[in-house]
Amino acid sequence: MTVRIGVIGTGAIGRDHARRINQVLAGAKIAALSDVNLEGARAVQAAVAPDAEIFATGEALIASDKVDAVLVTSWGASHEQYVLAALAAGKPCFCEKPLATTADGAKRIVDAEIALGRRLVQVGFMRRYDAGYRMLKQVVDSEIGRPLMVHAAHRNPTVPEQYVTPMAIHDTLIHEIDVFRWLLDDDYVSAQVVFPRTSAHSHAKLRDPQIVLLETAKGIRIDVEVFVNCRYGYDIQCQVVGEEGLASLPEPMSIVMRKEAKLQNAILTDWKDRFIASYDVELQDFLDAAARGTATGPTSWDGYVAAISSDACVAAQEAPGTIVPISLPARPALYD
Amino acid sequence: MTVRIGVIGTGAIGRDHARRINQVLAGAKIAALSDVNLEGARAVQAAVAPDAEIFATGEALIASDKVDAVLVTSWGASHEQYVLAALAAGKPCFCEKPLATTADGAKRIVDAEIALGRRLVQVGFMRRYDAGYRMLKQVVDSEIGRPLMVHAAHRNPTVPEQYVTPMAIHDTLIHEIDVFRWLLDDDYVSAQVVFPRTSAHSHAKLRDPQIVLLETAKGIRIDVEVFVNCRYGYDIQCQVVGEEGLASLPEPMSIVMRKEAKLQNAILTDWKDRFIASYDVELQDFLDAAARGTATGPTSWDGYVAAISSDACVAAQEAPGTIVPISLPARPALYD
Amino acid sequence: MTVRIGVIGTGAIGRDHARRINQVLAGAKIAALSDVNLEGARAVQAAVAPDAEIFATGEALIASDKVDAVLVTSWGASHEQYVLAALAAGKPCFCEKPLATTADGAKRIVDAEIALGRRLVQVGFMRRYDAGYRMLKQVVDSEIGRPLMVHAAHRNPTVPEQYVTPMAIHDTLIHEIDVFRWLLDDDYVSAQVVFPRTSAHSHAKLRDPQIVLLETAKGIRIDVEVFVNCRYGYDIQCQVVGEEGLASLPEPMSIVMRKEAKLQNAILTDWKDRFIASYDVELQDFLDAAARGTATGPTSWDGYVAAISSDACVAAQEAPGTIVPISLPARPALYD
Amino acid sequence: MTVRIGVIGTGAIGRDHARRINQVLAGAKIAALSDVNLEGARAVQAAVAPDAEIFATGEALIASDKVDAVLVTSWGASHEQYVLAALAAGKPCFCEKPLATTADGAKRIVDAEIALGRRLVQVGFMRRYDAGYRMLKQVVDSEIGRPLMVHAAHRNPTVPEQYVTPMAIHDTLIHEIDVFRWLLDDDYVSAQVVFPRTSAHSHAKLRDPQIVLLETAKGIRIDVEVFVNCRYGYDIQCQVVGEEGLASLPEPMSIVMRKEAKLQNAILTDWKDRFIASYDVELQDFLDAAARGTATGPTSWDGYVAAISSDACVAAQEAPGTIVPISLPARPALYD
Repeated sequence: MTVRIGVIGTGAIGRDHARRINQVLAGAKIAALSDVNLEGARAVQAAVAPDAEIFATGEALIASDKVDAVLVTSWGASHEQYVLAALAAGKPCFCEKPLATTADGAKRIVDAEIALGRRLVQVGFMRRYDAGYRMLKQVVDSEIGRPLMVHAAHRNPTVPEQYVTPMAIHDTLIHEIDVFRWLLDDDYVSAQVVFPRTSAHSHAKLRDPQIVLLETAKGIRIDVEVFVNCRYGYDIQCQVVGEEGLASLPEPMSIVMRKEAKLQNAILTDWKDRFIASYDVELQDFLDAAARGTATGPTSWDGYVAAISSDACVAAQEAPGTIVPISLPARPALYD
Repeated sequence: MTVRIGVIGTGAIGRDHARRINQVLAGAKIAALSDVNLEGARAVQAAVAPDAEIFATGEALIASDKVDAVLVTSWGASHEQYVLAALAAGKPCFCEKPLATTADGAKRIVDAEIALGRRLVQVGFMRRYDAGYRMLKQVVDSEIGRPLMVHAAHRNPTVPEQYVTPMAIHDTLIHEIDVFRWLLDDDYVSAQVVFPRTSAHSHAKLRDPQIVLLETAKGIRIDVEVFVNCRYGYDIQCQVVGEEGLASLPEPMSIVMRKEAKLQNAILTDWKDRFIASYDVELQDFLDAAARGTATGPTSWDGYVAAISSDACVAAQEAPGTIVPISLPARPALYD
Repeated sequence: MTVRIGVIGTGAIGRDHARRINQVLAGAKIAALSDVNLEGARAVQAAVAPDAEIFATGEALIASDKVDAVLVTSWGASHEQYVLAALAAGKPCFCEKPLATTADGAKRIVDAEIALGRRLVQVGFMRRYDAGYRMLKQVVDSEIGRPLMVHAAHRNPTVPEQYVTPMAIHDTLIHEIDVFRWLLDDDYVSAQVVFPRTSAHSHAKLRDPQIVLLETAKGIRIDVEVFVNCRYGYDIQCQVVGEEGLASLPEPMSIVMRKEAKLQNAILTDWKDRFIASYDVELQDFLDAAARGTATGPTSWDGYVAAISSDACVAAQEAPGTIVPISLPARPALYD
Repeated sequence: MTVRIGVIGTGAIGRDHARRINQVLAGAKIAALSDVNLEGARAVQAAVAPDAEIFATGEALIASDKVDAVLVTSWGASHEQYVLAALAAGKPCFCEKPLATTADGAKRIVDAEIALGRRLVQVGFMRRYDAGYRMLKQVVDSEIGRPLMVHAAHRNPTVPEQYVTPMAIHDTLIHEIDVFRWLLDDDYVSAQVVFPRTSAHSHAKLRDPQIVLLETAKGIRIDVEVFVNCRYGYDIQCQVVGEEGLASLPEPMSIVMRKEAKLQNAILTDWKDRFIASYDVELQDFLDAAARGTATGPTSWDGYVAAISSDACVAAQEAPGTIVPISLPARPALYD
């Protein structure tokens, strides 16, 4: 069976997912496209999805009997309405992050899915599909004893002027917030943010770098350096310290060169080069589950918890040094 | 358009390629299967290719109008006849190595393809599709000046009793023979083999390790250690020394762990883990070209040159220390 | 001129320094020994210092005209009195850490040295003499822009039952407290300690691991993981993040081995193997300065600041999560 | 007891050894200097050896009762005569390489030492004292099973016009020739040289790079790349492949930096930075043995075997591709 996919939102990520499904992955095809900008949808149709039908609205696309499953890659503020519509239609739905722009919005999706009684939503936290993190999880689960600490860093070479302090949480740390919960099988109980002196390469509305300190229910302490004007590259570091040993996320594969008195490897400078392969795995996982009428991978609950945890980190940014508690409702049985 | 693939030979590699085409890659489906062991073909049909028709002979499969392109994954001695049949039928054909069991056989395929006047054959030298070698080629082509030397190693943890000395060339070194021609854009002019003392872990009919010394038309000197009972792992090393610097094949990505007084990475022990991802890329390349009615990647000519070069290396094994010349006919224009 | 050295305290470290001066370093000899345990002094005399005279008390040794300079390697609680005596005698004095067991005691030494008007005291913070830290300082000073953050770890494989929580500061972190001031040319303004869940390999009176967060006058943020039952080895990590790049302390030199499916380096398990070479450099520096009648290297002021900073860290341990301010007097001109 | 050292030859290396003995090492002092250039001797006296007496000839220095042991650091052609004189005087003698400029000359020294019946000569092969090689020998002796192969490289960034092809053996490979005998406890039985195309950075009288292939009595095969215009740095590589695993010489310790999209370590560019520390160890070993009236470390026999082996390698250069046998006399009992 070929799963017929409808894509809502045909910007860069929507277009790339459409290409991926039609040209790289197995078992699905792009059957429908929709965008508030009709020209954008037509351009994607012409470029990578010639057999797709264009719908005037996301709701119409979701309702169409030509669509088996939905990709929500539209503007973040519209995610909630489309995911709720897909749930109402009983169709598997892949939603790029954020699941919703507020924790309350994410909660409404969780409630709708619980009411439905089965999983239909996958949230686009792609790091869980990254080969490096998967290797790391395997080692953490089997080789180094109980995890006690995580030392991590999320570094970008540069960010534009529009990127302001809270975006370091909502757009950047959000990936660590999700992936550490998965890596450690744990939840956060508090957050603290400390600010080193600001880099001269930052700008007026951005305190950069910052260090986010998280504590988990199990008592694991996590420190994450977020440094988005680090200049030298796009660099994701993660080291887990366990009772018996340490394990570190692998460096991306690269050529070792000896030249000009340097033993050197290239460091990536674009996040897409780092995680592009994980999009293929993530979306194939969605397609395989959609063919069975369900969803796997990161859940609505994960999206909701990420929203609550992010809000606490932003509160911690606003009161530097203060330890902000994070309290979560009990995990519903659907997400066990 | 979906390319309809017929697979001749449904052993381990045939089965795996069938799974790959039906479950992982885009743009093709398994339409036909054939094997001298009919039960084997049926088992693959049941497991991964339910829509495939089973043919009594490879020739019948090739002739069928339900088949657009052919995969030859049968016993090596039968490759030549099926590739010639595919050429006669004008159908794109992917042939696992060896292209033929003799240089003369490979020559007959080259001649047939030249007579046809267009490329239809891709030989299964998958290393050219390996991400590491591709990175290496890019650096060699742009960063280190003219290549002068290559230091390489091909190590297996162990081989069975049936593996005898010449197989170190035909089954093992054959990959280096092909990939260095591609990496350096060069051909061999001589080969020499020297034998260190034999490892106690080898057996009576196998001199192991051995060192193969190759010289190219450009004057590049290559040394390859072939050590198939090295015990510690499956390890492929390649360092290119250029006029301005050195570049080395990356180690496979792995977790760095600190445990038990060791800073340690896992080394692979199975060749499949090392090169499995390159099969996907290789075969997708075949499918994409087949959709256009042609072939790309390693050519019949590459298969023929590999056969001639291997024969010289075996002659060099038989006269240790002797420098055996390798002389190749001029490259036909079809393969420029 | 050969500098005649008197050693007060002939335990393990005193004995090793005596051996070092008589057998490894140039320009000095052991002329005098003293210990509360006379037998210990005689044993050192017999083993490595046959020409040394044994004195009944440290004070007598210091007063002797056969002694040009003094090494204080006695029990910590006695350091202050011997250093003050050496200052009173106008003799260069090398004092193992701690300079004194209280900040007040260290202050008395600083005051005495200021009253004297010239430097005579070197404190035994050997890390400043370690080749790795020296390389790191050079790179930090020239290559990575203004330092913004330091991520560090101090790990021991195991500690005995007598090692209780505050010792993680006084005996372990004390090295980082000193070396980071030197590395960054900076002072601390606050400390905070957070405790992850405790390792099962710790014991009742030791919360292990712990993370110490330091802030400097320049606004640099330092996090140091102190983990003294980490099991896997003795491991000192230090990474400095600057505005233009990062620099990390080198791993100790070791053989890379490929064996048993592991790419592996040995990790040290004994702190002495890590820092033994720096003792030679440190003590030669003392001998060279003593020959000129003065002292270089870590000062009394450094010893005093280390004491104040340590006290703040212990206070921070006692109130986990609280940010404890550190306030220092102005640096006297003698120590500029 | 302080060993009184006489230095014959006060050029760069003689001066540096004099400084080392007077300022760095323990147990000896420079008592005498001699040089064909009297001004040179006086300059060294003034700079680092104020207590040394200047002698008109090396022979007079050797004969003086103010000299206990001799350093021969004069012009290579004069080594033999001074070493023979020291042997005649029964004084320990450290001789920089070469022991003599011909194998016959070295043989005369061996014969004289055998006639004397005890070791007095140490040859200046400093690599045996390098910390990296010592670590490697320990691992090779205990961890990787019987050695089967050695892959090595000796690379210099550049050499002057006077450096011609045979110097790649006499001045460069000579270090590998000695150190591999020690590392493997073995002797050579044949040599072959192959020449890759020559680097554009070489000059008319130098074929560079070259690969020297050595076979040992035990059947170990060694390949050494000698590349003295490699541009990128001074780089010494050595990998030993054993029956159970591989061990590699460590890279020199250096800072890992992340900057400008590169994960980078500095590579040394000057051989002195690579091996300077081993001179201290080597010479201390000589001083310690001299104090006991004997010599340890590399022997006259080692110097003689190095001369024979080098001659064979030069013969192999002159007949590229030819396997040149190396035959050694039986090792005299004095050198067991």
